[in-house]
Amino acid sequence: MLMEECGIFGTLLKNNNNAVPYVVEGLIALQHRGQESAGIAYVTEDELKVFKKMGMVMDVFHNGTMKKLNSHMVIGHVRYSTKGRSEIQNSQPFHVRFKNEHFAIAHNGQIENAEQLRKELEEQGTIFLTETDTELILHILIKKLNKKISEWTFEEIAKTIFENISPSYSLLLLFKDKIIALRDKYGYRPLYYYTDENGIYISSEDSGFYFLGPDKKNIQEIKPGEAYEFSLNGIKKFSVNSQEKRYCFFEHIYFARPDSNLFGKNVHMMREELGKMCAKENPVEADIVVPVLDSGLSAALGYSKESCIPIDLGLMRNRYVGRTFISPNQSDREIGVRRKLPPIEGVIKGKRIILVDDSIVRGTTMRKIVDMLKKAGAKEVHVRIASPKVVNICKWGVDIPEKDELIAANKSIEEMKKAFNADSLGYVSLEGIKKILKDEYNNYCFHCFMK
Amino acid sequence: MLMEECGIFGTLLKNNNNAVPYVVEGLIALQHRGQESAGIAYVTEDELKVFKKMGMVMDVFHNGTMKKLNSHMVIGHVRYSTKGRSEIQNSQPFHVRFKNEHFAIAHNGQIENAEQLRKELEEQGTIFLTETDTELILHILIKKLNKKISEWTFEEIAKTIFENISPSYSLLLLFKDKIIALRDKYGYRPLYYYTDENGIYISSEDSGFYFLGPDKKNIQEIKPGEAYEFSLNGIKKFSVNSQEKRYCFFEHIYFARPDSNLFGKNVHMMREELGKMCAKENPVEADIVVPVLDSGLSAALGYSKESCIPIDLGLMRNRYVGRTFISPNQSDREIGVRRKLPPIEGVIKGKRIILVDDSIVRGTTMRKIVDMLKKAGAKEVHVRIASPKVVNICKWGVDIPEKDELIAANKSIEEMKKAFNADSLGYVSLEGIKKILKDEYNNYCFHCFMK
Amino acid sequence: MLMEECGIFGTLLKNNNNAVPYVVEGLIALQHRGQESAGIAYVTEDELKVFKKMGMVMDVFHNGTMKKLNSHMVIGHVRYSTKGRSEIQNSQPFHVRFKNEHFAIAHNGQIENAEQLRKELEEQGTIFLTETDTELILHILIKKLNKKISEWTFEEIAKTIFENISPSYSLLLLFKDKIIALRDKYGYRPLYYYTDENGIYISSEDSGFYFLGPDKKNIQEIKPGEAYEFSLNGIKKFSVNSQEKRYCFFEHIYFARPDSNLFGKNVHMMREELGKMCAKENPVEADIVVPVLDSGLSAALGYSKESCIPIDLGLMRNRYVGRTFISPNQSDREIGVRRKLPPIEGVIKGKRIILVDDSIVRGTTMRKIVDMLKKAGAKEVHVRIASPKVVNICKWGVDIPEKDELIAANKSIEEMKKAFNADSLGYVSLEGIKKILKDEYNNYCFHCFMK
Amino acid sequence: MLMEECGIFGTLLKNNNNAVPYVVEGLIALQHRGQESAGIAYVTEDELKVFKKMGMVMDVFHNGTMKKLNSHMVIGHVRYSTKGRSEIQNSQPFHVRFKNEHFAIAHNGQIENAEQLRKELEEQGTIFLTETDTELILHILIKKLNKKISEWTFEEIAKTIFENISPSYSLLLLFKDKIIALRDKYGYRPLYYYTDENGIYISSEDSGFYFLGPDKKNIQEIKPGEAYEFSLNGIKKFSVNSQEKRYCFFEHIYFARPDSNLFGKNVHMMREELGKMCAKENPVEADIVVPVLDSGLSAALGYSKESCIPIDLGLMRNRYVGRTFISPNQSDREIGVRRKLPPIEGVIKGKRIILVDDSIVRGTTMRKIVDMLKKAGAKEVHVRIASPKVVNICKWGVDIPEKDELIAANKSIEEMKKAFNADSLGYVSLEGIKKILKDEYNNYCFHCFMK
Repeated sequence: MLMEECGIFGTLLKNNNNAVPYVVEGLIALQHRGQESAGIAYVTEDELKVFKKMGMVMDVFHNGTMKKLNSHMVIGHVRYSTKGRSEIQNSQPFHVRFKNEHFAIAHNGQIENAEQLRKELEEQGTIFLTETDTELILHILIKKLNKKISEWTFEEIAKTIFENISPSYSLLLLFKDKIIALRDKYGYRPLYYYTDENGIYISSEDSGFYFLGPDKKNIQEIKPGEAYEFSLNGIKKFSVNSQEKRYCFFEHIYFARPDSNLFGKNVHMMREELGKMCAKENPVEADIVVPVLDSGLSAALGYSKESCIPIDLGLMRNRYVGRTFISPNQSDREIGVRRKLPPIEGVIKGKRIILVDDSIVRGTTMRKIVDMLKKAGAKEVHVRIASPKVVNICKWGVDIPEKDELIAANKSIEEMKKAFNADSLGYVSLEGIKKILKDEYNNYCFHCFMK
Repeated sequence: MLMEECGIFGTLLKNNNNAVPYVVEGLIALQHRGQESAGIAYVTEDELKVFKKMGMVMDVFHNGTMKKLNSHMVIGHVRYSTKGRSEIQNSQPFHVRFKNEHFAIAHNGQIENAEQLRKELEEQGTIFLTETDTELILHILIKKLNKKISEWTFEEIAKTIFENISPSYSLLLLFKDKIIALRDKYGYRPLYYYTDENGIYISSEDSGFYFLGPDKKNIQEIKPGEAYEFSLNGIKKFSVNSQEKRYCFFEHIYFARPDSNLFGKNVHMMREELGKMCAKENPVEADIVVPVLDSGLSAALGYSKESCIPIDLGLMRNRYVGRTFISPNQSDREIGVRRKLPPIEGVIKGKRIILVDDSIVRGTTMRKIVDMLKKAGAKEVHVRIASPKVVNICKWGVDIPEKDELIAANKSIEEMKKAFNADSLGYVSLEGIKKILKDEYNNYCFHCFMK
Repeated sequence: MLMEECGIFGTLLKNNNNAVPYVVEGLIALQHRGQESAGIAYVTEDELKVFKKMGMVMDVFHNGTMKKLNSHMVIGHVRYSTKGRSEIQNSQPFHVRFKNEHFAIAHNGQIENAEQLRKELEEQGTIFLTETDTELILHILIKKLNKKISEWTFEEIAKTIFENISPSYSLLLLFKDKIIALRDKYGYRPLYYYTDENGIYISSEDSGFYFLGPDKKNIQEIKPGEAYEFSLNGIKKFSVNSQEKRYCFFEHIYFARPDSNLFGKNVHMMREELGKMCAKENPVEADIVVPVLDSGLSAALGYSKESCIPIDLGLMRNRYVGRTFISPNQSDREIGVRRKLPPIEGVIKGKRIILVDDSIVRGTTMRKIVDMLKKAGAKEVHVRIASPKVVNICKWGVDIPEKDELIAANKSIEEMKKAFNADSLGYVSLEGIKKILKDEYNNYCFHCFMK
Repeated sequence: MLMEECGIFGTLLKNNNNAVPYVVEGLIALQHRGQESAGIAYVTEDELKVFKKMGMVMDVFHNGTMKKLNSHMVIGHVRYSTKGRSEIQNSQPFHVRFKNEHFAIAHNGQIENAEQLRKELEEQGTIFLTETDTELILHILIKKLNKKISEWTFEEIAKTIFENISPSYSLLLLFKDKIIALRDKYGYRPLYYYTDENGIYISSEDSGFYFLGPDKKNIQEIKPGEAYEFSLNGIKKFSVNSQEKRYCFFEHIYFARPDSNLFGKNVHMMREELGKMCAKENPVEADIVVPVLDSGLSAALGYSKESCIPIDLGLMRNRYVGRTFISPNQSDREIGVRRKLPPIEGVIKGKRIILVDDSIVRGTTMRKIVDMLKKAGAKEVHVRIASPKVVNICKWGVDIPEKDELIAANKSIEEMKKAFNADSLGYVSLEGIKKILKDEYNNYCFHCFMK
């Protein structure tokens, strides 16, 4: 099954047909959630159309392209896929046709009961033209509602999805006359909407609205189990009971933008807290704290504050690096890391270093970074990870590999320390996270951290 | 419904994984059949993948791209669509997933019972992710065969299509271990295969094989009602009864390459015959025969031979012309035609001209050409069309507009003559075509020429 | 030295700043004269700027690009270069800076005394940043006029060029307040201007104006030895004595557009005359005349008319062919020719063919075409070339290779016939051309046809 | 005159023709020095060629392109230009032709006596095809050496440049058989070379070598007043007296990569020292230190260490932002800043903030950042700049605007504070820098900081 880390953004403008640039701006703000393909579905006077392409948002949408795409209701999607299935046919939004009517969908998440749903549908002869979970939602809607699309009511649509599709999903549906935004009852993935005098905007993260210079009071979370209908007639809401929450903690650790506020917490500040907790749980004498840029910076700031060991840039981050033009020889395994994270020797030399990163999955680059730091003269390198050990897969939309590829699922702390050539290694415990989140702890999903 | 003029090409190589470049060469040779998108489906060791993009074959496939696409079995498609539905999701081949197995399809044609099939399928809750007829074939196969794809036999597949899908279709199916090529029982669209010591090739037109320097004895027509299975185990054939043929005469008139041999006739020579017949049926005293390049050249040669009036280039054809950068003002309606078909005044001035074109559909440019010729000094312009009047739509794959847009369906010869500002106007009659085709006449479809 | 086949186009608009699209349209109309790079120089309120790029006009200029290029005076250039020196620094127009003033140049031609001028300039320490003759003109102007650019008068500029630069040159100079167009005293390369109510246009060929729907009375030849200044103040003319003309006959044979009228003759009609003369001088019994498309078509029409042997399309021309994706094996030398000029067997089989082409330079493809026709069943192939034997180099701007690569300079007719595997071979004699041109004969340059 | 911030990189390989990828990797490492155009000059068996294009290194050089560029000696250049003169003809390297011989140049710097040299040359009739200082060097070499290029000795070349060209220049010259690297006697711009068993590499910054995994002992500074000849015969050195050094301090403040070591100091550590000194000289009570990412991070770390006020991420940096698709309305002046540097409200709200940036030139964005922080709830914003006030232009290669655009040249600290809407404003004094640099102080150029 394809795991999908994605971002979605929608716009409904009340008074003009210029919604496409808003969605494009929103997708740019969500680009970190998916860099493989970008696309939109949009409503015109008598049609519903899709424009999508492999590539980054900026490359997919040119000013010239956009001038031709006039619409007042648009949904968009950025996608990141795994396992090489980066074919255009898997890129979203999808555009569906049924009895001469149309609708489109953009989805962030991964459906837990996908295999079972797929089997049931296949038993009834349904075929799949894409390899995404998202396609299932389309088939389920048609099968269950069993009438013309234009006769579907908002409540029916929302109910059908809530009742038949297992989380996770935050999604946008585009119809001729409305956008429906919907978040699963556990709330795995975030979803927000914002209203101003011109219209309504929906976004995976609240930072998606920042280009609007928003009045933050008007940013609303779409809560777990809630669905909204946005149309020129106004806003309708439908909700199902959502007692149990399962906010994805990985959104905080790695996936979201630091300036986003997810599940009631600012992402950067959460990472800083995690860094502090990591310092409390894994103290060590050292000279400097070195972040693995960019994602480790927030946690390193926290570690530094808590430990009172100064933070310093022992590793730079080179932004212009892409593919390599020179094949590294055997003896030079670190060329990739060195191009991307070149060490600053003057900072490192002779120092006892606390190296802070946000998480470790496979652990393959960590060894290269440690080796590089030691070559550059580091006396000791203490690896500190501002999250718990990743020991399990994710079935709800984070691209975590199979267990046998997860280093922490297969090695002890001592073994990992050796594998990284580190002088010590420390994670944050789930107990530590409980102390940070307090009562909120039970509202999160920590599945990938639990055997 | 979307009408589709397309080209398909497939290759199975016996001893290497380099089939992609062969299919790309084949698609280039068929580029005239569709210039909007190009794509391939290909088999790798454990997968079946698709690569497709909007654009011409040369732009979609780069040397760099192709180096990564290793496969010994590949099918490809070039597409031309009408009515603006040129979205990537309608481009072929399509890749289907059912019970963890895959196959792909590339289709040329238009299915007559598409609306009815679609309705039936929609009643059963089937949805459509594309707007093409082709998707129907996928659903029908799954519904009717009702088991795992790997258990489908060649005969079952072929039978299911022949029994359920109304023509027209010439198509290629790619499975993990075979290519199936299939042509509907009426044979509307052409299809050929060729074998050499390296492998097997399938093409919409026999000219698709010419880059191979083929031994022409080994080019075989896939006859109406025939299906072939090509695999590393050899060639299998299945056929259904095909008493009635309905070869599309428009392939000869306009659509195919002049060097192709379709339905037993060379295309250029057929056009020349039509030109001769046009001269016989519509003689007129004149000084020169002027072809509307490129497509009118063959017919003009025929007209000239029959009439003994010399052919001359009164109109050039400018190959570098694309979009216009300057908006023409009202008084200059001919700018588009003049850029593309600039007149050669020295040839035209003071002459009585027989202007020969292959066909007239809407008739909007003909007026502009005639006006332009008269401005350039032509004394008389006699329009001669080397085909019958187009008075009806096509439901089998030629992009002919609705009746109310067909000039010949709405005006008399006299009215059209006036509309074109021509001094006379002549077509070829169906009787004339009968004289050319003789016994073969009954094997063709002339639906668009009959009220 | 770099030989340059190029096209130039300039526009001065009286009432608006939208001249760039006009020059782009003009360059598209002249694209056949150079397909390697395209560029413009344009005047803005306080600057003179250049925009140029490798590639075809359509690819270099996008609507987006052009919107930013506002100017009322623009000159443009398309370039074809030989010998691999297709570097961007050799592409035109050139932009010159001298004492804080600017001007730009676009040149078609090749300067005969280039080596000597270059040596003289180099003795004085001048260096060259490009490898083009054109750069010489810039240096000469500065050296000879020896004052600020803004103090140069039109007459001085024209005189300096006429007196110091040996033909060939047709060129455009862009200054802050004027365009100067100038043609060498022998008139090797063509040059025209056109005036309408909006402004003034200058073009290498008169067909460059056709997109304007021009009133042909207002198309003026810039005659050999003439220079024009075009500015908002009107038109000035300066001329030098030009008793001897040397119009390049190769422009008629191959280089120009068939609908252009060069040196007082229509190009297509001239080619037709050459075809007729070829038939008169080289009669042979045969069944059909087959043109090598596109360039051989006009001559083949002439040959057919004169010989009363019907013309037919034995060879198609495939427009979509570019680079090959498959390496031909040794035994298949004709793959390149077969992709580009596929034979139509039905036309060829069993026939005695007169194969008509416009010219032969190296003769490498002719053998491949003849072989291909014979493989396709031609009984005899009689090669007829509608121009004299090319036996000498050109120093005035046509890209003819060194003598040792010119087949006609090294082989007799009999030897060439054998080399081509042809049954007979015939050219047009210079005497034949004299008969066509009559008194005009002495106004042409036939250097490449004379040992 | 055009100011140029650029990067240069050269490679000479001893045993193979694969030097182009090395130079491309080097240019990628120097991409921060110029992002407008990229190019190389390279030696082949019998030629010297140039390949250059507008755009980033990664976009200019594709794997396909590079395969065709075989050479063992290559020089490269990345360029950033100011004032809109981003035309291809100003991009480097330049390729010169003189008496049928060639050489090429890549230059970083700006020549102080350019205007005077240009005037002198123009008096002698020299014209300029580019608008760069670099072209002057070419003319001077030819004029002064006054013989064939192949007869120029290394010493003559170096001497001619040192004696005639006023700094600043760090440059590479490519000849048929050698690369010459040369740095002006004041050493304004950095230059390094590195040798390993495969060959020799030259780079503007030592971080340019890091992709090689270099043995840092073998990285050598090319000292002020030194020239090196690198050829297959080995290394030659020539030097002129260089008593006075004038290292550009702006390289440290802003221009160079943090991991580079320039003029004997690591760039990041120097910025950290500047941050510390800024804290010493401009203490203020506050809650957090907020860096303006990316360039302000090093200084902010220093400020935080010295002041013991914790650093925190009050502003994020969005890497995916390019052009804006939505026109901001009047009331929303900060949209550009907010897209690029979105504030993290939770960090900012209610806090007294010390905002640290590396430098202020025009001061236009600082006001927007401060306003944005205050809107986000900051109680106080104290602006701290980790460099002295920029009050003067630069004539040696840093793109500083005219004095009337330099805010610090026209306003007092108090006035600027008001203009920025800041609660206080502090710079680093030159005395402060003296304390950091100690004896080295006199080796630097601080021209732009001195009235």
